[in-house]
Amino acid sequence: MGSKYPRSVRGCLPPWALMLQGALVLIFFFFTSYDTSSKDQKKLLGTYQVVQDLSVMAALGLGFLTSSLRRHGWSSVAFNLFLLAVGVQWAVLLDGFLNQPFHGKVSIKLSSLPPAAMSATSVLISAGAVLGKASLVQLLVMALVEVTAFSTLRMLDRRVLNMDNHVSMMHIHVFAAYFGLTVAWFLSKPLPEGVEEKEKMATSPSLFAMLGTLFLWIFWPSFNSALLDIPNERKLAVLNTYYALAVSTVIATSASAWTHPQGKINLTHIHNAVLAGGVAVGASCHLIPYPPLAMGLGLVAGLISVSGAVCLPVCLHRVLRIHDTSGVHYTFGLPGLLGGITYIVLMVLQASWASSPWVGFQVLNDAGALSLAVAMGLASGLLAGLVLNLKIWRAPHVAKFFDDQAFWEFPHLAAGF
Amino acid sequence: MGSKYPRSVRGCLPPWALMLQGALVLIFFFFTSYDTSSKDQKKLLGTYQVVQDLSVMAALGLGFLTSSLRRHGWSSVAFNLFLLAVGVQWAVLLDGFLNQPFHGKVSIKLSSLPPAAMSATSVLISAGAVLGKASLVQLLVMALVEVTAFSTLRMLDRRVLNMDNHVSMMHIHVFAAYFGLTVAWFLSKPLPEGVEEKEKMATSPSLFAMLGTLFLWIFWPSFNSALLDIPNERKLAVLNTYYALAVSTVIATSASAWTHPQGKINLTHIHNAVLAGGVAVGASCHLIPYPPLAMGLGLVAGLISVSGAVCLPVCLHRVLRIHDTSGVHYTFGLPGLLGGITYIVLMVLQASWASSPWVGFQVLNDAGALSLAVAMGLASGLLAGLVLNLKIWRAPHVAKFFDDQAFWEFPHLAAGF
Amino acid sequence: MGSKYPRSVRGCLPPWALMLQGALVLIFFFFTSYDTSSKDQKKLLGTYQVVQDLSVMAALGLGFLTSSLRRHGWSSVAFNLFLLAVGVQWAVLLDGFLNQPFHGKVSIKLSSLPPAAMSATSVLISAGAVLGKASLVQLLVMALVEVTAFSTLRMLDRRVLNMDNHVSMMHIHVFAAYFGLTVAWFLSKPLPEGVEEKEKMATSPSLFAMLGTLFLWIFWPSFNSALLDIPNERKLAVLNTYYALAVSTVIATSASAWTHPQGKINLTHIHNAVLAGGVAVGASCHLIPYPPLAMGLGLVAGLISVSGAVCLPVCLHRVLRIHDTSGVHYTFGLPGLLGGITYIVLMVLQASWASSPWVGFQVLNDAGALSLAVAMGLASGLLAGLVLNLKIWRAPHVAKFFDDQAFWEFPHLAAGF
Repeated sequence: MGSKYPRSVRGCLPPWALMLQGALVLIFFFFTSYDTSSKDQKKLLGTYQVVQDLSVMAALGLGFLTSSLRRHGWSSVAFNLFLLAVGVQWAVLLDGFLNQPFHGKVSIKLSSLPPAAMSATSVLISAGAVLGKASLVQLLVMALVEVTAFSTLRMLDRRVLNMDNHVSMMHIHVFAAYFGLTVAWFLSKPLPEGVEEKEKMATSPSLFAMLGTLFLWIFWPSFNSALLDIPNERKLAVLNTYYALAVSTVIATSASAWTHPQGKINLTHIHNAVLAGGVAVGASCHLIPYPPLAMGLGLVAGLISVSGAVCLPVCLHRVLRIHDTSGVHYTFGLPGLLGGITYIVLMVLQASWASSPWVGFQVLNDAGALSLAVAMGLASGLLAGLVLNLKIWRAPHVAKFFDDQAFWEFPHLAAGF
Repeated sequence: MGSKYPRSVRGCLPPWALMLQGALVLIFFFFTSYDTSSKDQKKLLGTYQVVQDLSVMAALGLGFLTSSLRRHGWSSVAFNLFLLAVGVQWAVLLDGFLNQPFHGKVSIKLSSLPPAAMSATSVLISAGAVLGKASLVQLLVMALVEVTAFSTLRMLDRRVLNMDNHVSMMHIHVFAAYFGLTVAWFLSKPLPEGVEEKEKMATSPSLFAMLGTLFLWIFWPSFNSALLDIPNERKLAVLNTYYALAVSTVIATSASAWTHPQGKINLTHIHNAVLAGGVAVGASCHLIPYPPLAMGLGLVAGLISVSGAVCLPVCLHRVLRIHDTSGVHYTFGLPGLLGGITYIVLMVLQASWASSPWVGFQVLNDAGALSLAVAMGLASGLLAGLVLNLKIWRAPHVAKFFDDQAFWEFPHLAAGF
Repeated sequence: MGSKYPRSVRGCLPPWALMLQGALVLIFFFFTSYDTSSKDQKKLLGTYQVVQDLSVMAALGLGFLTSSLRRHGWSSVAFNLFLLAVGVQWAVLLDGFLNQPFHGKVSIKLSSLPPAAMSATSVLISAGAVLGKASLVQLLVMALVEVTAFSTLRMLDRRVLNMDNHVSMMHIHVFAAYFGLTVAWFLSKPLPEGVEEKEKMATSPSLFAMLGTLFLWIFWPSFNSALLDIPNERKLAVLNTYYALAVSTVIATSASAWTHPQGKINLTHIHNAVLAGGVAVGASCHLIPYPPLAMGLGLVAGLISVSGAVCLPVCLHRVLRIHDTSGVHYTFGLPGLLGGITYIVLMVLQASWASSPWVGFQVLNDAGALSLAVAMGLASGLLAGLVLNLKIWRAPHVAKFFDDQAFWEFPHLAAGF
């Protein structure tokens, strides 16, 4: 019975986090320096804008998107910020070590922040799948493993497969979704009677989650165009993302009503499926030359996402015993796969139009990169899952799953309310 | 009694919405193409910024502004996003067909998005008046009619009356308010006892609505300067809008306290009246050469808006039987009229200072444009109202007015809670 | 007993506010004009961006940050907007009179808005300390005194001490915190039994406050770089602020868990302490040449802020009888002091490396400026406190402290609920 009460994590989170932060400061001290070459004001403005938009998406968008668990809202938003803060620092270092020619010091520029913020975003996506089942220390360990794996994946994509920086980054959705699902598989335990009830009751879609969705919806064009340098590609990326999002919003709402016997809409579907268009169009948004192609992609992505939301939880939960707290699989995973496949098809078409002899090679290369992202997600998720099951992290007890009280001080409760 | 239960809308929303979205994709396929001419990075940045600001205002600002109905918050925010997504697509097409020289294909640029987003915003404004009394299918039909009417109005303004693009767009407030009120007139029905009570109880101003107000307040200078190209006019527009909004905030708060016997402030007044300055200064914000003029306009607009909020609902509701759910008339309609008249006066003064012989013509022209906006709003609202009263849209029963449960799936209710 | 009921403030707020607003319009009429010199589009875009970011921080960030008082959320957010609207107008005028060479007219540019918005922000910071204990009229008077004092401080810094504009502005945190604490000392009264309970119960950290924190966190780099013109300094300011904020987020979360016997985190600490890094790095963010220095500053600031949150309320409240509603002292005051001292140390090091003979003078000068900010905050806070205790402002009765009902009309209550 005693184990039902939350174990003290005082001896766990503070020392690990402080040690890690101290180590990060030291690594920055010995191995980094600011880039002192001059940059013109104009480019500075644009880059800073991108950094801000990505921060809004990561901290506000993904933070509130997952706040639907009624008794877990504090953890969703605050843990999200914590993971972002750690993830960005670690990603800046790794990107520097793995991608820059190393002359003793990693040079830190303003333009190192967007890719780092996006790498850290992969952690926030995966965290959606394990939310409510892991303590902050566990999430912290997961963040370190995931950022390392994702930076390695991008390095392999670039060096071995000669992938474009933008396309390689857009595999983030597939990678993060399968990483998250694998970790969730390790952490999913049969819930006791009361908790299952609690989890159902608690999953109340709310206006706060809608707020997160809207921030993501509005700033998604920034995400898809963040790593594109050529103005024309940026323009196409913005327009295609905009149209794909508009269509997937219409489709998600209608399809959600379609799946209900009385034609009622499910707000959780809206939270997730309106974003499917932005995910699906990601990899090829700078190439799609006609608006209806982007719109068609948004249409298919919306349908896939809502069908996934209706069918998958049952299959996954019953058959594979994976509990995907906030639907990461159908929000990011499936539309991401669709986007990856679309990119391959587009490249093949482009190559065959140019009657290039390299078509076969191109297909293999691109398909290899997509498979590598999935495989890397599964493999590193496996590793993270194994590590997270160690006793030293003092995981929360199953009875305390999906409950803010395990982690947060409620002042009034102490006073006897 | 059976009719009290919500009718299934499964056979209604999904087929209509999917058909419409399919048709839109096809029209885009046959009649549009991306503009492939090069654009410099700098202008791209500015235009994208405007697109984002308008999205924030439309999706977040207007979405949450109308979320005051306590049991209708989900519908307010999610329907708003749906209407925006449909409206923008339709407005881009119409703007292309009506305004561009037509060479078989409408050319789609990044700069086609701001006017389209603003046209779609007219739907969101009008929707505020009928909120809680119409189903999503009805709102969808309304959106199509309204965007068509507003695009036609702008085309007439430009071709027949030689109006400036910016000024013609600023008639949006007047047009949308009178359109919405006319439609609300058709949909307003005497409420049964219980529902009237429910509506009163439900109208609880909330922090979410305040959030919407703040987003609109902060980004309103972007709205007023979105269509201005000359840097100096943009600058004036931003400054004048900023000052007008500041003054109307002070005035709205004080005037609201003044109208209450004990000096208490009404939060609903704040939600609406702080924005009156931005609306009133819209048409002439690029011309006003002295800050106090903009401030005076904000002062008068704030007073009008609060007086409207205190007096109008009673008159409108009792005499004309129009139920204006979220006060569109005094938030957008009256300050918009004030703005339109101010613009005419300014033009007359400017013309008479230049001792131009065309003063009389100018007055007629400008007054004609304003009247046209009102007339067009009333006429197309009449049309939309008639169409919306058709049985095929399966309007919600009066007993289900102002209730999210008519449209949304509540997971816990199904489970027996 | 009668005095327990809220006194009518109808005869108080509206006339004062309307008179003041009328006076401001008149002063603008006689003493200001728009700057008509041309500006290029590029700079316009950048400046407008800064204005918007500052508005987001002031209206949304600081507005919601202080919305933790459960029964005082409306007042927190709406009073905040009112004070911002008044403060900006007054600050633009004062900045013009005190800083521009006066040729009969103050010239108003777009670039006058950022410093004015920042001066007005000082009022919003101080208001956090007296929130729930002052009526809107009292806050209005406080705003006028504080903006005047702060503008005078900046003028003295510039003319007498030859301080940089940016550094002088960054004393805002220290100034505003000590101003607010002094005013709070005048307004703090021993609470009756019931109210003390109410205040404790009411202080429930919420997702809305978290929303405010996140807005501040995301846009803080804009605040710290708003007054810097040299691109390289801007870049350093953005990067250093970003890293300092990231570190203080990690530290604040861990330190908060450390201070609780069971390792639970306090959400109020998160609300405040994650921002400490941004405050501490403010004065020297454009000078710090190595990332770890900024990170170390964020680390120390996070620790100080959490320790302050744990220890100070007890000391301040018991010994000095100062009730600091939303922890202004440890959110802005202490990290601001740390930042001021860091700046002095950095300047000394720089001067001694250049083996300048003026080291001693430099130290005296910089230390003088910091002390002046504290002294000015205390002195003008004393003045404001004395004025606010006058009977004519009809302060709310102690029994109505921390209660929205004293100021706001609740429609349902009128109807008998």
